Amino acid sequence: MPTDIEIAQAATLHKILPLAHQKLGLPEDALSPIGHYKAKLSLAQVEALQGEKNGHLVLVTAISPTPPGEGKTTTTVGLGDALNHIGKQAIICLREPSLGPCFGMKGGAAGGGHAQVVPMEDINLHFTGDFHAIALANNLLAALIDNHIHHGNALGLDVRRISWRRVVDMNDRALREITVGLGGPANGYPRQDGFDIVVASEVMAILCLATNMADLQRRLGNIVVGFTAAKQPVTARELKADGAMTALLKDALAPNLVQTLEGNLAFVHGGPFANIAHGCNSVIATQTALKLADYVVTEAGFGADLGAEKFIDIKCRKAGLKPACAVLVATVRALKFHGGGEGLNSLQDGLANLRRHVENIQQHYALPVVVSINRFDSDTAEEIAMIRQACEALGVACVLATHWAEGGAGAAALAREVVALCEARAAKPAAQLYPDEAPLADKIRAVASKIYRAVEVQFEPKAQAQLQDWQAAGWGHLPVCIAKTPYSFSSDASLRGAASGHVLKVRELRLAAGAEFVVAICGEIMTMPGLPKQPAAERIAVDAQGRITGLF
Amino acid sequence: MPTDIEIAQAATLHKILPLAHQKLGLPEDALSPIGHYKAKLSLAQVEALQGEKNGHLVLVTAISPTPPGEGKTTTTVGLGDALNHIGKQAIICLREPSLGPCFGMKGGAAGGGHAQVVPMEDINLHFTGDFHAIALANNLLAALIDNHIHHGNALGLDVRRISWRRVVDMNDRALREITVGLGGPANGYPRQDGFDIVVASEVMAILCLATNMADLQRRLGNIVVGFTAAKQPVTARELKADGAMTALLKDALAPNLVQTLEGNLAFVHGGPFANIAHGCNSVIATQTALKLADYVVTEAGFGADLGAEKFIDIKCRKAGLKPACAVLVATVRALKFHGGGEGLNSLQDGLANLRRHVENIQQHYALPVVVSINRFDSDTAEEIAMIRQACEALGVACVLATHWAEGGAGAAALAREVVALCEARAAKPAAQLYPDEAPLADKIRAVASKIYRAVEVQFEPKAQAQLQDWQAAGWGHLPVCIAKTPYSFSSDASLRGAASGHVLKVRELRLAAGAEFVVAICGEIMTMPGLPKQPAAERIAVDAQGRITGLF
Repeated sequence: MPTDIEIAQAATLHKILPLAHQKLGLPEDALSPIGHYKAKLSLAQVEALQGEKNGHLVLVTAISPTPPGEGKTTTTVGLGDALNHIGKQAIICLREPSLGPCFGMKGGAAGGGHAQVVPMEDINLHFTGDFHAIALANNLLAALIDNHIHHGNALGLDVRRISWRRVVDMNDRALREITVGLGGPANGYPRQDGFDIVVASEVMAILCLATNMADLQRRLGNIVVGFTAAKQPVTARELKADGAMTALLKDALAPNLVQTLEGNLAFVHGGPFANIAHGCNSVIATQTALKLADYVVTEAGFGADLGAEKFIDIKCRKAGLKPACAVLVATVRALKFHGGGEGLNSLQDGLANLRRHVENIQQHYALPVVVSINRFDSDTAEEIAMIRQACEALGVACVLATHWAEGGAGAAALAREVVALCEARAAKPAAQLYPDEAPLADKIRAVASKIYRAVEVQFEPKAQAQLQDWQAAGWGHLPVCIAKTPYSFSSDASLRGAASGHVLKVRELRLAAGAEFVVAICGEIMTMPGLPKQPAAERIAVDAQGRITGLF
Repeated sequence: MPTDIEIAQAATLHKILPLAHQKLGLPEDALSPIGHYKAKLSLAQVEALQGEKNGHLVLVTAISPTPPGEGKTTTTVGLGDALNHIGKQAIICLREPSLGPCFGMKGGAAGGGHAQVVPMEDINLHFTGDFHAIALANNLLAALIDNHIHHGNALGLDVRRISWRRVVDMNDRALREITVGLGGPANGYPRQDGFDIVVASEVMAILCLATNMADLQRRLGNIVVGFTAAKQPVTARELKADGAMTALLKDALAPNLVQTLEGNLAFVHGGPFANIAHGCNSVIATQTALKLADYVVTEAGFGADLGAEKFIDIKCRKAGLKPACAVLVATVRALKFHGGGEGLNSLQDGLANLRRHVENIQQHYALPVVVSINRFDSDTAEEIAMIRQACEALGVACVLATHWAEGGAGAAALAREVVALCEARAAKPAAQLYPDEAPLADKIRAVASKIYRAVEVQFEPKAQAQLQDWQAAGWGHLPVCIAKTPYSFSSDASLRGAASGHVLKVRELRLAAGAEFVVAICGEIMTMPGLPKQPAAERIAVDAQGRITGLF
């Protein structure tokens, strides 16, 4: 069986500029090519499209996943291809994958099988350089912080209260906790510090939520890098970092256009973490796609308790997006995992997870939903029938999707269900879980009780103090971004299925004043992965034809 | 007076693909566009050109510079434009500027005035992403080192003897000396470490000296990252890092094509440090340019004692390049500086520096040379006459070049002198200062006595031990790369003019087994700059038209 990269490299790609012209009517000078198969759409063109009417926005989400994921990206690509296959005009909106993890354990993140965006190896590695720009904008701010302190610290930053960390797009555990500024006066003041992986940078979240260049600079200026000894916030604007950071991000803000294996268009732009950030592709890409196509298929990170909730309560709320329906991706494998074992009984038990997500999407997000089974060769007819039966009892459509093996044709049934849901619904926003004006603590409680079904939220002392301070400092109107395990409705990964009656413990909060949300940390959240004993880097190479191999 | 960026942004650029087709006959599919005005020439095309005959290679070097530099890059661009202006076919080969320093003190490094390569702001910032790729290849190796130790250290690396440092393209003094791996067993073993700026990475030097993809991987594999407790070297190949590093550098190895303000073509590719590395643009770019044009104008870092020496003894030696002549750039300002003051007497005294460089180039590099005065508005007729007189006495041509103010037309006289020198010389290599088989210590002595005019070389105990070890370990055949101040012939920056009779102290050596040279450190060498009190970052911004401002 060919690997993803082999399938991707065997494909014949269309040159992206003529393809975008032919399919979307985009003039070639609206696009800046990066090689022949990637392009950035100019921000002037983004601006020029503002007056157009919007297409239907379809969110692909999932049941609570297992670590390898249940195929949301693959389904997003497959559904986009399928909509085009049945004669609709559809664009796909995906997140950009992170480079670092490609050298660790996971394979690429540009779909899989016959449902991929290409050029696969470019998208997984340097792509159009957006993440490099984000890393440097992040690190310029870090350098300016230490430089400011070195040159007299006029703003009175407390070196013990600097929260801004450096970033690198590499799985590098040795950089999680470090001491910088050693070696004497020429090297500044020593302090504790650490690196996160680039996707965890607040700059990433900001780029993905900014609506234009001015909004980008405004948000960058609002970043709180730390506090003074008197606990007053110090911002990037006070460090005069926002202009130069914007300059570094000027090109990164323009959305990237690529194609699927079937020659349909996809924006792949931005990729914030789905735990400490909102986990969706950029607002600019999504809004632009809606102007260009009748259907826009996008995804949000992890399961519907995390990604979909943040998609609605952060991204849609801020950008005024009105999703038309949701696709809930499920696999037999994950449902059995939630049932705690291997047989049909486990599958039956595990369906509780799917039911809960369907209920949440319908009741709390007020979105119509269709269940899409991401078909594996090992799935039996009985297993599929059991899932179908459960969906029938819930009154939701359930389709078998085989885009991984068959491309868009394999998701045609899913596409028809999606079209039916979209056409039946008048454009209106999804339901938000809380109003802007609710206090931060109540916002966290709203998500915990409605979506996670926790009986209580406990705030540890540090979190309590932060809530109080930040509410008083004027950040109470921000939405919350809850960082917890994706493997359970609770914050305990071992509570599979449809956990309820649990207590959500909030350990600490993190302020993302530029991204405009407050992160609530529940449990251990890793912002810098490590490499395994035998990292994928050991098998990645370039062959005699100059092609990359070993990148699965 | 308009700034460099204002002049650059006012220019009307040609689309690079048709320009390259029209001027060089390159088929459009041999080029991969990065936006409309930058392109990478495919390695397949580089390969296909191998059989063509070579043009003349012209090296632009300089007298010992003052800190702002004397205009080598500007002269290189001006001369390239001038050669085209007088009807010759010429291509320029430059180094890529480093992004980090743009946010510190220095302005851009893509020429200046009316002698620039464009798009100026792209070239100075992310350009085509080469430096980002180099940074990640460097940092992947670093992560694999710490990961190897974390997972059992089968190769027995001594954590006290790891020489491989991480890099970032940012002036960030806080990262010069750090401790990594803190925070307990999950984060690996604590050790001392540090970051250099990207241009100081050995990966940069390797990319610039590699002749093709296989040679790139071979060199990457040869990198010595550190030693075992028994002082045995550990290589990147033993860590199985070379394949993945090559994959990260696959696109970076292809040379970048841009244009001058006058629409002539320039390769801007690679940019190694000129002290701890050889300070020249890539071998691939230079070799390719020689196949495509009758004249290739290139530069080497710092003055003729450093850059030109390394150009000949490292780059030309390894790549088999045969330079036809050298242009020695001088300014009235720098000559006065070398004379120790401001008036005509100081200029007269400072001419000793120019004389010494001319002598070195003629006698020790065996290259014909022309002196080019980079004209400043403040220069007087007497000053110019005095320099001319000195050159006449030396028997070398001296021309006044005003390309900064007038573009290529202002360097037409220089171009004519260069053509005359090239046409008068049969293709033959420059003279090398030492043979491959000389011991490392003798190679250092040869450069010190012939070029620096030192009476003696003193090796400190650490350097002595290293020389002995590395000579014994089989690295004795490598050329040497001397890292010393560029402001003096000696290793003491305060000894201006034409220092002689001094002692060169070699503090330590650094092995660049992948780049294939041994660095001799004389004095303090900074591999991570810091930001000044008021960094340029504070004034860099994006204006309402989406243009970058404040980048001088």
